[in-house]
Amino acid sequence: MSPSSGRSSGSRKPCVFCEILAGRQSAHVVLDDDVAMAFLDVRPLFPGHTLLVPREHHETLTDLPVALVEPYFVRAQRLAAVMEAPAGMGAAGSFVAMNNRISQSVPHLHAHVVPRNPKDGLRGFFWPRGKYADEAEAAAVAARLREALAAVG
Amino acid sequence: MSPSSGRSSGSRKPCVFCEILAGRQSAHVVLDDDVAMAFLDVRPLFPGHTLLVPREHHETLTDLPVALVEPYFVRAQRLAAVMEAPAGMGAAGSFVAMNNRISQSVPHLHAHVVPRNPKDGLRGFFWPRGKYADEAEAAAVAARLREALAAVG
Repeated sequence: MSPSSGRSSGSRKPCVFCEILAGRQSAHVVLDDDVAMAFLDVRPLFPGHTLLVPREHHETLTDLPVALVEPYFVRAQRLAAVMEAPAGMGAAGSFVAMNNRISQSVPHLHAHVVPRNPKDGLRGFFWPRGKYADEAEAAAVAARLREALAAVG
Repeated sequence: MSPSSGRSSGSRKPCVFCEILAGRQSAHVVLDDDVAMAFLDVRPLFPGHTLLVPREHHETLTDLPVALVEPYFVRAQRLAAVMEAPAGMGAAGSFVAMNNRISQSVPHLHAHVVPRNPKDGLRGFFWPRGKYADEAEAAAVAARLREALAAVG
């Protein structure tokens, strides 16, 4: 999808994040500049849960042009910092995550930046974890990924 | 903590990721270059679950020097791409996440890059979500974050 098309893939419905970026839908804005906008998630994991979106419409992390990678993630760093800053959310830590395609409610790249605290109820969230049958299986998976990585350049 | 100290904060125990980076502990390596290393998580959410770590020891996303932001996240992009590549994990999507301090098992920045598929069991993982009492509460939280962001520069 071309940047700034502002439309969801395969749909005539405008991209809701492009609508917010264009000022046609309201949001509780946290950051707004020439690179990106950040605003509160309307259904927060915890208060302060913020979504960081690039101004240009790019669907997933992989689609973000290299020229935007540093500017975009420097802003993610600053948002993570304010989750912990006493003047910000005063949290003990943060969680920064991107869903690409699966569990991605809006097909416009967005990093969730969420304040975290001990015993906040998300402790078990990275579970259940599995394991590889044996070292050979793990080695085969790693080899497959290495080769695929070489192919993507 | 200074880069490449290789020790966990407040402990004499060496950082396990620095040990892997130095070749003193084994791992199923997916990527290894002058900027970063990626290897399989030994307790994967799903097979192919990879951890991307900068070569220099930096604890959290916020600590990553700006000069490393683009190189580090370009590698995260490539890993996300191979989760979907047919020659890689052939998944329908990916999940890229960083835990900073809370739920961060090793205090050396690492991005989890995880293959995702429909009905893979993680659908509910971003739940339960809350909501703000009213628009005024949300507006106050956004204002607080904006001001804290201005303070971090």
